[in-house]
Amino acid sequence: MRALRNTWYVAAWQDEIGPDTLLARTILNEDVLMFRDGSGRAAAIGNRCPHRFAPLHLGRHVGNAVQCGYHGLEFGTNGLCSRNPHDSGSNPPKASVPTYQLAERFGAIWIWMGDEPADEKRIPDEFAFLADDKRAHIQGYIHVNANYLLTVDNLMDLSHALYLHAGVLTNAEQRDNFVPQARLVGDVVACEREQPGIAPPGQWVEALPPEVTKVDFYSHVYWHAPSAVIHPFGCRVPENPDAGASAMSAHFFTPETETTTHYFYHNTRDYQVDSAETNAKISELLERVFTTQDVPMIEAQQQVIGNVDLMSLHPVVLQTDRATVLMRRVLNKLITKEQSASATANQPVAAGSDSQ
Amino acid sequence: MRALRNTWYVAAWQDEIGPDTLLARTILNEDVLMFRDGSGRAAAIGNRCPHRFAPLHLGRHVGNAVQCGYHGLEFGTNGLCSRNPHDSGSNPPKASVPTYQLAERFGAIWIWMGDEPADEKRIPDEFAFLADDKRAHIQGYIHVNANYLLTVDNLMDLSHALYLHAGVLTNAEQRDNFVPQARLVGDVVACEREQPGIAPPGQWVEALPPEVTKVDFYSHVYWHAPSAVIHPFGCRVPENPDAGASAMSAHFFTPETETTTHYFYHNTRDYQVDSAETNAKISELLERVFTTQDVPMIEAQQQVIGNVDLMSLHPVVLQTDRATVLMRRVLNKLITKEQSASATANQPVAAGSDSQ
Amino acid sequence: MRALRNTWYVAAWQDEIGPDTLLARTILNEDVLMFRDGSGRAAAIGNRCPHRFAPLHLGRHVGNAVQCGYHGLEFGTNGLCSRNPHDSGSNPPKASVPTYQLAERFGAIWIWMGDEPADEKRIPDEFAFLADDKRAHIQGYIHVNANYLLTVDNLMDLSHALYLHAGVLTNAEQRDNFVPQARLVGDVVACEREQPGIAPPGQWVEALPPEVTKVDFYSHVYWHAPSAVIHPFGCRVPENPDAGASAMSAHFFTPETETTTHYFYHNTRDYQVDSAETNAKISELLERVFTTQDVPMIEAQQQVIGNVDLMSLHPVVLQTDRATVLMRRVLNKLITKEQSASATANQPVAAGSDSQ
Ligand code: FES
Ligand code: FES
Ligand code: FES
Repeated sequence: MRALRNTWYVAAWQDEIGPDTLLARTILNEDVLMFRDGSGRAAAIGNRCPHRFAPLHLGRHVGNAVQCGYHGLEFGTNGLCSRNPHDSGSNPPKASVPTYQLAERFGAIWIWMGDEPADEKRIPDEFAFLADDKRAHIQGYIHVNANYLLTVDNLMDLSHALYLHAGVLTNAEQRDNFVPQARLVGDVVACEREQPGIAPPGQWVEALPPEVTKVDFYSHVYWHAPSAVIHPFGCRVPENPDAGASAMSAHFFTPETETTTHYFYHNTRDYQVDSAETNAKISELLERVFTTQDVPMIEAQQQVIGNVDLMSLHPVVLQTDRATVLMRRVLNKLITKEQSASATANQPVAAGSDSQ
Repeated sequence: MRALRNTWYVAAWQDEIGPDTLLARTILNEDVLMFRDGSGRAAAIGNRCPHRFAPLHLGRHVGNAVQCGYHGLEFGTNGLCSRNPHDSGSNPPKASVPTYQLAERFGAIWIWMGDEPADEKRIPDEFAFLADDKRAHIQGYIHVNANYLLTVDNLMDLSHALYLHAGVLTNAEQRDNFVPQARLVGDVVACEREQPGIAPPGQWVEALPPEVTKVDFYSHVYWHAPSAVIHPFGCRVPENPDAGASAMSAHFFTPETETTTHYFYHNTRDYQVDSAETNAKISELLERVFTTQDVPMIEAQQQVIGNVDLMSLHPVVLQTDRATVLMRRVLNKLITKEQSASATANQPVAAGSDSQ
Repeated sequence: MRALRNTWYVAAWQDEIGPDTLLARTILNEDVLMFRDGSGRAAAIGNRCPHRFAPLHLGRHVGNAVQCGYHGLEFGTNGLCSRNPHDSGSNPPKASVPTYQLAERFGAIWIWMGDEPADEKRIPDEFAFLADDKRAHIQGYIHVNANYLLTVDNLMDLSHALYLHAGVLTNAEQRDNFVPQARLVGDVVACEREQPGIAPPGQWVEALPPEVTKVDFYSHVYWHAPSAVIHPFGCRVPENPDAGASAMSAHFFTPETETTTHYFYHNTRDYQVDSAETNAKISELLERVFTTQDVPMIEAQQQVIGNVDLMSLHPVVLQTDRATVLMRRVLNKLITKEQSASATANQPVAAGSDSQ
């Protein structure tokens, strides 16, 4: 599939992988197995045993290695066979599996699918708020039967909230003064909207003091290549700055296959930070909205589009699509650049001839 | 798929579409959305929003239009975008969906999938009995995983009733004197059988006075292109004409895809017309026979045949197949004629050259 | 699919087919119907009615024949239409279905899928123990979504029992002194292991007198082309030969399609022969082990491998694979021989020309 490879994708939440977990996930069509070595450090190797191709996640976690559940070969975090219980203990030379570079940062496990050396510094610091302990945190994972760009589109065109989430996340008043501003900041696509002087919508009614009836509402999205979105939104109360409340969420869309996506979401807030009740409410709200509104719509879209690129079907482009258009433009540029660099690197050298 | 297009297919029963219903149905591989405008008139448009291809039936019915459930574009019965809530109210020029001509007649909604102008007069008057209030009426819809011609075959070769429906719709005596007569009446294929002097079979035992033990049974089918069948059947009692009873049913098979079919059935009778109990019994009987006998058999046939034309497999032809052979012959003639007319219409004119 | 055809495959257990049973099973991609004639003799014919391709197993067993459930044509064990209830009783000349040669032996029904004359003597006498009434018997059938060679591999490399069935069929001690000996005996592949002086593993704890704490354990497998395995295993007690106990099982893997398999297993034992309780325990144990351990692993393997030959993926070969390597070598030789014989038989004779 056409996708950026020398980049970081979120492969799991850190807490999905305990000391003995074998977590299998297909990423960019490759079967990956994640687990922790004895020191607790996460590693990722190919999930196919080179002996008879049993998926390794059906095996056992043993010390620093994974033991294949079929005939017991063991593979370490370096992908090499660390133990062959048969053959008088000799390890067959070709018994190895691919390895993938991981980084554990901000509560997530990031994976690098490309051939270039992974660079942890390329995980944007903007995601540090995922680990900010002054905020309340909720996170989750959803499997989506749709291409990952359709899931990014969903978030980068927040006009959908006015229709798909009407009455749940938005109120009718918001439909009238929606003015999104999309622009490019380096390779980041920003799309900001401000709605001053409206009644608090959706979850904000309960987030604010009861006497607050008018707020300056804001809702911004920032796309970071290849498919991560930061979404700050909330209410400012100009006459009483302390009465405002903010949320900030991160959304990571990792391609599983051409038409399926791993969706990792993480929501934070600066109000009612210690309230288990608010946690439960927001958690239920997000899960309900994602699984009963966004995901069914995106999956229906995918069914209609089929396994072709959205753009090849010549969609009508509205002004509200500006952010998604910019996003695809930047991503295409990055993928094309990566692929031409890769082609150059792999190009055979013309030997002994300068007429070429 | 190879099928007649400039013709009427039943797309729905009229009562399937209420004032706010958005009814999506795929017909001849095209995704169609049916709904009623503010005046109650049914309309059909393409079901794919031209913005981002969300299926429109996931949206809302608003006044005379359908509002896309994803970002709120609205489309009227003429297929044009009637409202764009974004872009300062300007309607994008290319934002339209296809439209289909409908007719509401005899309790059914008929759709015309071709490019020629639809002609309501081509809905055969023979179907007027569907709206005859002197008869009792039962109707239903079944989705069938088989090509529509296999479902037509089922009805045009009623010898199947003697085996597939043995003991339920037919009795053993009927097997012995089955003499179907198939013939062509214009483009209508008629297949009639008469079984004089037999015991009343199946449902007719309860339909007739208990003293009637011998009847002249008749069972006729009339195919109207492309895929509608009228089926009068019943019992005459020669010695007491008033003691007889008749049923008349209509069966409409509308291609969804090459291998799936919308099956609309409508059963009427002239006896026990006001009996809710008889209604319930006949209704249960039909549903049971169709869903546990006919449909499983036809779907099993489709599985065996696969996605090829039945005739390409060189089936053995029996005398009882005469009606289905005539039916395919007429239908092929009509499709070939339609396609050559269409090819002529689309043929480029050879400019400035008489040597062609 | 590439498979041996002029050979015997098990198609059913004899007791699966009662006097009125119509048993449909796809074998080597061909739809086969098995039933018994009036004298109780099993026969196999093609399962597709030549009239309209209804599967015949949806019909009825009538005397010596099968009556199609759709329109009533009848077919005898010779594949010819024995009755046409329509067409004034005349039988259409082309109304026939293929036939397959069967043999009933050792409690199984064997089928011959090739064109050469079937030879019952080629059913190996080694399977006579299936009918040995001095032993206790348990048998079963499982459908497996994997190529039949993967299921043969499973059994021919019993090292898997040490990992996949650890703690259930094997004990930890066995892992240390596993020494399989694979060799070819004619076209039979034998793989034998002997583990002297170990604690009785798995089911053998309950099979032996409580005072027996050390046994000479043995576990052998013998593959007979194309896909049958005999598996004697058990415990010898050198100091008290009468205290030993033995099991002997047969496993038949019949290709349904390229990626699905009919698995017939039959387990016998020489201890607690009349114990219904032991029968129930062993039966539960086998079903649990096969359906929750072997089959899921083999099906997962198939998913990873996809619809290609295992060997084309260049698996790492261990010493424990020697039996499976020999098995594939013999099978390939037999298939190649069969196919070249068939090509020779079908080769057109070059007429009147010696310059070719
Ligand atoms: S398949 Fe993994 S050890 Fe055999
Ligand atoms: S997909 Fe319909 S309005 Fe966007
Ligand atoms: S399909 Fe078998 S008799 Fe018609």
